[in-house]
Amino acid sequence: MLNMKKNKLMQTSFDTGEISVPYYYGYDCLDSFVHLINGYDPDRLLLVIDRAVNDLNPNLIGSLSKIWPVSSVILQPDEKVKNIATLSKIAEDGIKAGISRKSIVIAIGGGVIGNIAGMVAGLLYRGISLIHFPTTLMSASDSVLSLKQAINSTKGKNHLGIFYTPKAICLDISFLQTLPKIQMRCGLCEIVKNCLAISPENISWFKDIANPNLNFSEQELIDLVSMAIEDKSKVTFDDPYERGRGIVLEYGHTVGHAIETLFTQENRDIKRFITHGEAIGLGMLYAAHISADLGYLSPEEVDMHYELLTAIGAQTLIDLDFNVLKSYINFDNKRGYLSFGKGQIAMVLLERLGKPLNTGQYPLRLVDIDYLVRANKKLSKLNESKSMVGV
Amino acid sequence: MLNMKKNKLMQTSFDTGEISVPYYYGYDCLDSFVHLINGYDPDRLLLVIDRAVNDLNPNLIGSLSKIWPVSSVILQPDEKVKNIATLSKIAEDGIKAGISRKSIVIAIGGGVIGNIAGMVAGLLYRGISLIHFPTTLMSASDSVLSLKQAINSTKGKNHLGIFYTPKAICLDISFLQTLPKIQMRCGLCEIVKNCLAISPENISWFKDIANPNLNFSEQELIDLVSMAIEDKSKVTFDDPYERGRGIVLEYGHTVGHAIETLFTQENRDIKRFITHGEAIGLGMLYAAHISADLGYLSPEEVDMHYELLTAIGAQTLIDLDFNVLKSYINFDNKRGYLSFGKGQIAMVLLERLGKPLNTGQYPLRLVDIDYLVRANKKLSKLNESKSMVGV
Repeated sequence: MLNMKKNKLMQTSFDTGEISVPYYYGYDCLDSFVHLINGYDPDRLLLVIDRAVNDLNPNLIGSLSKIWPVSSVILQPDEKVKNIATLSKIAEDGIKAGISRKSIVIAIGGGVIGNIAGMVAGLLYRGISLIHFPTTLMSASDSVLSLKQAINSTKGKNHLGIFYTPKAICLDISFLQTLPKIQMRCGLCEIVKNCLAISPENISWFKDIANPNLNFSEQELIDLVSMAIEDKSKVTFDDPYERGRGIVLEYGHTVGHAIETLFTQENRDIKRFITHGEAIGLGMLYAAHISADLGYLSPEEVDMHYELLTAIGAQTLIDLDFNVLKSYINFDNKRGYLSFGKGQIAMVLLERLGKPLNTGQYPLRLVDIDYLVRANKKLSKLNESKSMVGV
Repeated sequence: MLNMKKNKLMQTSFDTGEISVPYYYGYDCLDSFVHLINGYDPDRLLLVIDRAVNDLNPNLIGSLSKIWPVSSVILQPDEKVKNIATLSKIAEDGIKAGISRKSIVIAIGGGVIGNIAGMVAGLLYRGISLIHFPTTLMSASDSVLSLKQAINSTKGKNHLGIFYTPKAICLDISFLQTLPKIQMRCGLCEIVKNCLAISPENISWFKDIANPNLNFSEQELIDLVSMAIEDKSKVTFDDPYERGRGIVLEYGHTVGHAIETLFTQENRDIKRFITHGEAIGLGMLYAAHISADLGYLSPEEVDMHYELLTAIGAQTLIDLDFNVLKSYINFDNKRGYLSFGKGQIAMVLLERLGKPLNTGQYPLRLVDIDYLVRANKKLSKLNESKSMVGV
């Protein structure tokens, strides 16, 4: 794990395939980042900023505007805005304002902001510079460690996207400490995923620092981030497009994305909000039960899923009408990796903790719908053996 | 040049960088293409078809539907439809119909169709298979020989795009012979561009076969296409993203795109239609006059531009209010390659026929706006020394 010194800019990198993206991080280090951006000699910045981050840092846009011509877009970081209409508006307004091939798009926020800004940067003039400035644990430790940019279709998450490489990633740890708990928990769920599906050797350390109030020291935060960089690099190093081994990162995502889409649909009649991370947490529980049902994971390994999620205060029960859930799973964006018949779905499952079940070149397994029905019953609140933990 | 045998599928390839795209061609060879597509084992086809091609071949969609599940989109091949709304609709409808990662997008038409279909294929699930089936000389000899896909913004052409590699290119020469003259002329203008900017050694052969009625034998058509493949490969072989030497392909495009955008804007008050190729032809005349004005091209070399364009019946005069033209040139998508001050524009110019003027790594030169004003006067119909040729 890396050691962080306050006020000093440190550097690691996110490596995948032939691509290496510098990852700069530090504490209270905005001045250093300004110096760094200056090195790229932009003619204009296009800032895509999370509304909450902008509210907490009302001088940010103004300070940058003193140095470069700045266009800024302030967005509610909601999956609902991650669509083609938002993409189109940002791009059109940017072109009108004078964005050129020498401009830099800077994504200041979490995964939603990074994804939209990544699409804008990747498509404008067939690709201009992109810098990620993650402000959530989720984006710092997961979503920026990817070349994948995407927007949602009306039928599901990330249906339209590209692979696009950022110029750099800049993380100021002090921003993470201003996060609402719900956002912090969201990121921790993906770190739980890494512990379960990639590096079970980290479970013991993670259990030591995990707490439902989500209080972490600066050093613990930087350790969490650097652990995530290491885990992600392990599986994407020789799979930059996440089409082979890297698909393990989708553990919990087949059902998780369906739950997330279901809870963020415009016309939903369910009023409760759920974060991406918690949805993936629930998705992992489905995947764990199915892995056990197929004779792979032991009851203790399934319990470890519950233990880690509960340790960070994430919810482990959800009441879902299976037919509704199924209709969303059918639009999962892993369609087409494996040929499957009616009533089957391709999922990332585990043979044991840290080892995905493989079919040919993919860490994917076809599952009959019956297994999902049984897992859905286990997650039901009516199942009194586990208690539901609220957000 | 290649020799074509009727009814037999021939193969060459479009090579750029590390990428080699097979280019299959023949005469009346749809059956062979069906066999070829079958080899890719698609679960569904998404056909994006030019309306005129569909009208001329009313059984095409039906025949393919007997072999695979088919979704089809019939489009008017107008720059006006090459926008984000069309892209969004095709992608959304495709997802609803069941398009998966194993599906193939097939572009049946000219450059507009190929560009939209290329964007759809490149973005769906971050990239599914794409096959180009060019039906115009322009697309067969120019637009499919590129990894560049794009749509227009409201401010100009190709402002949003990606680099995306097709699986294959399939050309049935018999489709070219059903082209309206205006479409054939459009493609010939880009071939004139290649003769002037890349391979002046082909000028003499081109002059021999060029005729204003645009009657060509099958062998002449295949020779034109294969010449274009050779020319394009020459400059993009070590520049797959067309960011260095390949920019020479943009000869005539700075002013040409502006003219084309001006004539295809929704709210234009100019009612005359102009094809992409003819707009580029006019753009080359601007570039030639400026190259001469700067002391490079000789009067004879400028005249050769007029001679070749006139030989194919393309127009060589246009009356444009310079201030209107300028406002469109300012949104040219080559913005940012070179730093330039107010009143300057980056253009591809020629030192002599076949040799672009270079600034550093780019075949681009900064031009003061005064040069454009003078060139604009030379193109004016009031200049009676050249006669305007109608479409």
